[in-house]
Amino acid sequence: MKNKIKKPIRPKALAPKGFRDYQGSDVISRDKMLKAVGEIYHHYGFDILETAAIETVEALGKFLPDVDRPNEGVFSWKDEDEKWLALRYDLTAPLARFYAQYKNQLTLPYRRFSMGPVWRNEKPGPGRFKQFYQCDADSIGVPNVTADAEICMMLSDIIEKLGISTGNYLIKMNNRKILDGILEMIGLGGPDENKGSAQKRGIVLRAIDKLDRLGFDGVKQLLGLGREDESGDFSSGAELSKTQVELIIAFLKASGTDNQKTLLNLTELVKESEIGLIGVNEIEQMCSFCDSAGFGNNKISVEPTVVRGLGYYTGPVFEAQLTFDVFDEKGRKHQFGSVAGGGRYDNLIKRFTGQEVPATGVSVGIDRLLLALKESTPYRNVLSGPVLVTVMDKTLIPQYQAIVQELRRNNIRSEMFLGNPKDIGRQLKYADQRNSPVAIIMGSEEVNKGVVQLKDLELGSALSKKIMTNKEWKERPAQTEEKRDDMLAAVQKILDRNREQ
Amino acid sequence: MKNKIKKPIRPKALAPKGFRDYQGSDVISRDKMLKAVGEIYHHYGFDILETAAIETVEALGKFLPDVDRPNEGVFSWKDEDEKWLALRYDLTAPLARFYAQYKNQLTLPYRRFSMGPVWRNEKPGPGRFKQFYQCDADSIGVPNVTADAEICMMLSDIIEKLGISTGNYLIKMNNRKILDGILEMIGLGGPDENKGSAQKRGIVLRAIDKLDRLGFDGVKQLLGLGREDESGDFSSGAELSKTQVELIIAFLKASGTDNQKTLLNLTELVKESEIGLIGVNEIEQMCSFCDSAGFGNNKISVEPTVVRGLGYYTGPVFEAQLTFDVFDEKGRKHQFGSVAGGGRYDNLIKRFTGQEVPATGVSVGIDRLLLALKESTPYRNVLSGPVLVTVMDKTLIPQYQAIVQELRRNNIRSEMFLGNPKDIGRQLKYADQRNSPVAIIMGSEEVNKGVVQLKDLELGSALSKKIMTNKEWKERPAQTEEKRDDMLAAVQKILDRNREQ
Repeated sequence: MKNKIKKPIRPKALAPKGFRDYQGSDVISRDKMLKAVGEIYHHYGFDILETAAIETVEALGKFLPDVDRPNEGVFSWKDEDEKWLALRYDLTAPLARFYAQYKNQLTLPYRRFSMGPVWRNEKPGPGRFKQFYQCDADSIGVPNVTADAEICMMLSDIIEKLGISTGNYLIKMNNRKILDGILEMIGLGGPDENKGSAQKRGIVLRAIDKLDRLGFDGVKQLLGLGREDESGDFSSGAELSKTQVELIIAFLKASGTDNQKTLLNLTELVKESEIGLIGVNEIEQMCSFCDSAGFGNNKISVEPTVVRGLGYYTGPVFEAQLTFDVFDEKGRKHQFGSVAGGGRYDNLIKRFTGQEVPATGVSVGIDRLLLALKESTPYRNVLSGPVLVTVMDKTLIPQYQAIVQELRRNNIRSEMFLGNPKDIGRQLKYADQRNSPVAIIMGSEEVNKGVVQLKDLELGSALSKKIMTNKEWKERPAQTEEKRDDMLAAVQKILDRNREQ
Repeated sequence: MKNKIKKPIRPKALAPKGFRDYQGSDVISRDKMLKAVGEIYHHYGFDILETAAIETVEALGKFLPDVDRPNEGVFSWKDEDEKWLALRYDLTAPLARFYAQYKNQLTLPYRRFSMGPVWRNEKPGPGRFKQFYQCDADSIGVPNVTADAEICMMLSDIIEKLGISTGNYLIKMNNRKILDGILEMIGLGGPDENKGSAQKRGIVLRAIDKLDRLGFDGVKQLLGLGREDESGDFSSGAELSKTQVELIIAFLKASGTDNQKTLLNLTELVKESEIGLIGVNEIEQMCSFCDSAGFGNNKISVEPTVVRGLGYYTGPVFEAQLTFDVFDEKGRKHQFGSVAGGGRYDNLIKRFTGQEVPATGVSVGIDRLLLALKESTPYRNVLSGPVLVTVMDKTLIPQYQAIVQELRRNNIRSEMFLGNPKDIGRQLKYADQRNSPVAIIMGSEEVNKGVVQLKDLELGSALSKKIMTNKEWKERPAQTEEKRDDMLAAVQKILDRNREQ
């Protein structure tokens, strides 16, 4: 038998579907924003926690017994020892696992923040990827709503730190207990074990959560017999009666001109429900805490339509909304909407411990905030490339190396051209594509004269974009000859001049 | 049939085996170090790139055709569309995929750095986990060894930036081509398709890479008939003859008193091999570039024993070694060894493109560096907790909130106690465990008098550790009463005093 050498099959160079690569300024902007948010979390007393990306499916709590592979929305696999592992789909489930694992070593309240990627095995869409960042802060073991009020204030501080001023955002808060009161009043109360009621409550919750998109008519349809969307798909409704629907709509429209009036409206609506009145009272307390700490109506506002879609919230819920106008790709004006949200979840840790552990937390949507702020100065896509020391003559490389290290030692980002140096045009094109501010040119002639040539590349770029007048241009030549000894100062001067513009 | 309500089974609260959680100062120290290393990479002209954690197994290139599940050492799973996906096991394979995917949009040389977690499905050990950080910089499309010399200089700058001074570390460099020359001279040359030679070369490489641990005798055994370790396990050797082994050992011992002498020794050894002489010449060039840029023998040194274990290196290889003495848990003195390494790999991207693309890169071992520097000031485990505003009286919470927000607005990390406030002793214990510098106490009596009590908690801790004299203690009482209006200044004074110590 002849031992034939097989030609290797070339693998496809493709990121898996739904994943993307982030380069340069995209990474820098996000890191800057994560840092800003993390600093406020830390400032408010939260300590950082970093759990691993992988958890057991059991701990994540999404295992569905009737399918071979655990939950579709999660990346999961069977490990060698036959255990199912999965990538985390949020930062709350790993927190619950961590807290339950270490509860004997932790003092209550346990307050932590976490930032990092999470993974969802869901159909990607425009701007939606299978890996994205979350940035959460949670307090565990906090029985009263002071903790919730603090999160609302913290959200306000975060949004303002990112450069959005009062009036251009609102922290909206509400309480699931008020909605629970309403549902109780229309006969949809009772324990989760009553599957009929629980299912209808779920439909109501998700219907309200879609108010922004569907408007009151759409929500009414979903509360009633159901709704057909533009594509003809039909969503089943909660099949509530007209009176039932009306009470829910009255709740959603209970917003008054200020927090006090909204609270009065809500009290009137749920006055027959004990849980409902507890809910209103908690929000009243939160308003009082916020007011006394300097966060008034214009920053934090009671808003009955905010309910948050997740099933596990049990008390106050809150959302940060940007209220300034933005324009979509077709030039249509709209509001940006929610960029952060959270709420109280008193039952999530109970899964592990059997005991109710009161907790509340918030998640800031970094990717949405970056999208909203992409035009604002600190998060704008600006990236300054390195000063480029070109290679005119290979035998001079030791001298080029001396130049580039001299620049670096003086805090100037720089590099010597490391590609094939045969073509100076290609080197300058590279400098242009790297967004280099300056190119340094030195051949043997320059070495003999003890000089270097400096090419001001931002000037060239400004000229080509015509953002410079003829007069300015004449006063600032694009290429100058400098004594080698004066090179550092001359480069620094160009960089300073660029910075000022 | 009765519809029994099943009691839910409680999931185990455990991180999967081989994974760990990082809290507080551990995360902060690592972030600080990643930031320091990233800044130097950026300063040297590299741009940041962040690829996703997940790649196709095909792109990662570890698929073994004879097993059902791709490579054991990798976390991988079959996606719904029957494609194998995997978590990246390093940052180089994703770089090769990224470069091959976008090569038409990228100008050469492409220079990027990346930092982030990677995953290995291997048996964890002490200090070794299945998720850990890598921090890499690579240049693609760099045909000459200037790029390699620059990496050595950059490594030197990184180590010194982290606070390790010249004399306490060495950047060691070598060239695979010199070893190739030696192997050629002993008849182990030839193409990789010659499986016999290729296999023996692999054994030789890995044997040399273990020199630190096994000494020359151990390496000689592995080059010869094989070696039995302490546990009785036997590793097959390369079965080289005595003459063959001797030449390899001579190569490993070619180090002279300075780079010049080492290069002379190496030239003498490989003078019959063309590839060997090319290798020596490349290292000679690298020395010249480093010297002219101010990186001499005392920072960057030619060291024949450094070969790096990975099979894909084709030219210069380098390693950063810490040379100061450290002590293990049994008090035994040893050297810390390698904390970073890399080399030239001209064939890795060829897998995708079919064309040879010259590239070189380096990986800094953040976890090992943190271990080495854990006692040095900037990376020491110090974490200052928040100032704690205690809750003496629930009705005063609005006033406590005003206090805590006043502190935060003045850049003082602080929090109000958010747990069950019934017991002031428990609140002070919490402050202690959080490492809080100050606790603020204000009951209704204090409110009436317009004062607050400040408890200096670092003082209490210093007293209990007896790091303060009696005289100092008398001058600095652990609890003082301050006017409410003077509270901010008084807290600031305590914080400033702590900072000075």
